[in-house]
Amino acid sequence: MKILIIGASGILGSYLTEELSKRHEVITAGRNSGDVRFDMSDTKALTDVLENKGPFDAITVAAGHAYFGALDGMTEENLIESLNSKLLGQVKLVLYGQHTLSRGSSITLISGILADDPVDKSSALAMVNGGINAFVKAASRELAPRGIRLNVVSPGLVEPSAANLGPLFPGHVPVSMKRVVAGYLKSIEGNINGEVIRVQ
Amino acid sequence: MKILIIGASGILGSYLTEELSKRHEVITAGRNSGDVRFDMSDTKALTDVLENKGPFDAITVAAGHAYFGALDGMTEENLIESLNSKLLGQVKLVLYGQHTLSRGSSITLISGILADDPVDKSSALAMVNGGINAFVKAASRELAPRGIRLNVVSPGLVEPSAANLGPLFPGHVPVSMKRVVAGYLKSIEGNINGEVIRVQ
Ligand SMILES: NC(=O)c1ccc[n+]([C@@H]2O[C@H](COP(=O)([O-])OP(=O)(O)OC[C@H]3O[C@@H](n4cnc5c(N)ncnc54)[C@H](OP(=O)(O)O)[C@@H]3O)[C@@H](O)[C@H]2O)c1
Ligand SMILES: NC(=O)c1ccc[n+]([C@@H]2O[C@H](COP(=O)([O-])OP(=O)(O)OC[C@H]3O[C@@H](n4cnc5c(N)ncnc54)[C@H](OP(=O)(O)O)[C@@H]3O)[C@@H](O)[C@H]2O)c1
Repeated sequence: MKILIIGASGILGSYLTEELSKRHEVITAGRNSGDVRFDMSDTKALTDVLENKGPFDAITVAAGHAYFGALDGMTEENLIESLNSKLLGQVKLVLYGQHTLSRGSSITLISGILADDPVDKSSALAMVNGGINAFVKAASRELAPRGIRLNVVSPGLVEPSAANLGPLFPGHVPVSMKRVVAGYLKSIEGNINGEVIRVQ
Repeated sequence: MKILIIGASGILGSYLTEELSKRHEVITAGRNSGDVRFDMSDTKALTDVLENKGPFDAITVAAGHAYFGALDGMTEENLIESLNSKLLGQVKLVLYGQHTLSRGSSITLISGILADDPVDKSSALAMVNGGINAFVKAASRELAPRGIRLNVVSPGLVEPSAANLGPLFPGHVPVSMKRVVAGYLKSIEGNINGEVIRVQ
């Protein structure tokens, strides 16, 4: 398969890229890293990549930012940035990607445990993750008759992030990157559709 | 209690207003209807109402629009409008409302069944509802120590809407407005916090 990995240089993306490269043609992407450089929240750049670097058999995301901070001091801008990057960035990928993909292809998005099991300061990130999960469930059913699958991986805090972020996630048991990559493989190489793949 | 009901003239809002008016001081609101007229997605108008018409003991929402239409033809504008109205409108109410509310008060938002149990053409609305539910779960925990409760009512298709919308919701069993109003009461007059009150 020819697979686009957005966020390939990141913590999640680097493990995913390593595994998928073993048996697929991988195109890595990031704003400032990878074979293709673009910001997925920039509609023109996104549609350019979809139209000119494809067609892809699978598009996967391991990118996107949302605000992490107390509700008390949160601003409207924090919310809008969060929605534009991780939520709208990914939803637009589906909106524009659906017209460039053929039967048998798939899209795999990323959300995270905070939608289900929030911690202090996580309300913007929880909002974004919850929106992605529900979007995937609904949109996948409309893509199914066209032979396109859509899933989302929702990991817990991953082991490589635990040293930095662990204290912000009391009682959360970090998940291994092996299991997170396996979650992506269920979507990319498996046949499931419309699932929130909880690796938690 | 002094209660602000945003969307008081609507299908849900009119039943809620009737019940709450029996034993509370109700201030009704809408863009073009009610005691106070403003668009909840307009930050300046929203903060004006919170600062000048309060303080409220409870703020409840039965308003907000999101796009209903096929993914195939959905535009970025449809998504942005959806986020601005029903999602950001309500999240901003919490963001700004938290600073105007006293201990013992509550905020009750509205989402809907499509976050959990989507139908055809509902991906924008599902996204918005899923985002609200997850936000409430996360944000409520930060409001709790300040004595402010935050919940969201997530109804199924309501009986008064079934004649019009029923054909778009195959197999969905419409819920009575009595039960939906009871869901709001759990939040407004009860003591729960951080709950997605599913009336489905
Ligand atoms: N780490 C965790 O424990 C964890 C747990 C659950 C969920 N997640 C989610 O997983 C995703 C990746 O997390 P991570 O920890 O791996 O992040 P990371 O290490 O910061 O990596 C992010 C990657 O995405 C790229 N990127 C960021 N924004 C982009 C954009 N707008 N357009 C294109 N590429 C972009 C970055 O490259 P450039 O800088 O070159 O753009 C980088 O390759 C995030 O959505 C995060 O919320 C992470
Ligand atoms: N009907 C259902 O079966 C059902 C089921 C589940 C969830 N819901 C949700 O419940 C909410 C209300 O639905 P409904 O069917 O009762 O709608 P509705 O009959 O159209 O009523 C909407 C109410 O909200 C006001 N409103 C709309 N947008 C507003 C804004 N931006 N700022 C302030 N007020 C605004 C309207 O008054 P003005 O026109 O004067 O602004 C009206 O009073 C919606 O979020 C809907 O998604 C409905």
